[in-house]
Amino acid sequence: MAKRTGRRPGSPDTREAILASARQAFAERGFDGATVRQIAAGAEVDPALVHHYFGSKEQLFLDTMKVPIDPRTLIDGITTAGVDHVGETLIRAFLRVWDSPAGGIGVALIRSGVTNEMGARLLREFLQTQILRRVVKQLDLDPAEAPIRAALIASQLAGLAMMRYIIKLEPLASAAVDDLVGMFAPTIQRYATGPLPAPR
Amino acid sequence: MAKRTGRRPGSPDTREAILASARQAFAERGFDGATVRQIAAGAEVDPALVHHYFGSKEQLFLDTMKVPIDPRTLIDGITTAGVDHVGETLIRAFLRVWDSPAGGIGVALIRSGVTNEMGARLLREFLQTQILRRVVKQLDLDPAEAPIRAALIASQLAGLAMMRYIIKLEPLASAAVDDLVGMFAPTIQRYATGPLPAPR
Repeated sequence: MAKRTGRRPGSPDTREAILASARQAFAERGFDGATVRQIAAGAEVDPALVHHYFGSKEQLFLDTMKVPIDPRTLIDGITTAGVDHVGETLIRAFLRVWDSPAGGIGVALIRSGVTNEMGARLLREFLQTQILRRVVKQLDLDPAEAPIRAALIASQLAGLAMMRYIIKLEPLASAAVDDLVGMFAPTIQRYATGPLPAPR
Repeated sequence: MAKRTGRRPGSPDTREAILASARQAFAERGFDGATVRQIAAGAEVDPALVHHYFGSKEQLFLDTMKVPIDPRTLIDGITTAGVDHVGETLIRAFLRVWDSPAGGIGVALIRSGVTNEMGARLLREFLQTQILRRVVKQLDLDPAEAPIRAALIASQLAGLAMMRYIIKLEPLASAAVDDLVGMFAPTIQRYATGPLPAPR
């Protein structure tokens, strides 16, 4: 039986409370492990309200991804810095998000992405529609080369996130941001603007 | 009640049958999802025999990791090719394993590594003791720089594996091996032997 709670259904912060609870649940338990019931309990609302505001757990997951990491804010800075500094700009923006409370969402994204086919699909969708397409547009890349450049960048950033924040492999796990920039910026820069091997 | 099976406990291939079943189970369901009962069923043996041969699920997991990917065989080739070709040698060896049936173990490793703390610990252990320590020794790296170089290489290889084999992000997912070597070898080479930023 649903427990009655003190939070009123129409309260303007009900939606935000659900999102905050969902972020934590997805980060801690991944997409499959988190339940709507737990998320509702964390937000002190009835589970029916979660369905009312978000429809499905999938939609709730996508909505939690959109909140703390606004890809536009991050990626639009790339133009300002110029394409010759995209390596450093991207790696700094990436570390800023992951070192913030929003980093938990990144952990949840990777966790769900490798655990099940639906999570892999969500992460692929998220990368392609929210991140890579925007980076490619900002950098004004050759459309024929853009997909491989974007995927190369994604591979290095995902691997860094996995080793630093999830597997916690030293010395990456506790390295200073400036040191990481020095190590990874040249890689990202080469993937974005360097020569590519000719297709065979 | 345990089902009696046709395979004799003392049969020399009992251990191999359990390992083969475990490899498949861990690859398909990850460390947490796979059960000793399922693994025993797949090998057509009694679950008690799994415990007899391997003690714990953890030990069984480690033993399955050791079988198809013998890090020594792969890594010892690095010396032959020489340190100036370590980028290409490593990426080729890595893709050879992942494109083989043993690639399923890699998927299981990453899956367990990001899903739970124990899996992360196992993967860290595996990387550090089975892979990175050997690479470092083969390359005769400066001991002060070896850990960060090994971790940088691990970050790029793990990210490539995630995007190509798990998330299946195109065009990496279906790229030819030679193209991938052209794209990733310079990165691995720089991490192994290139300049590092001075520590702050």
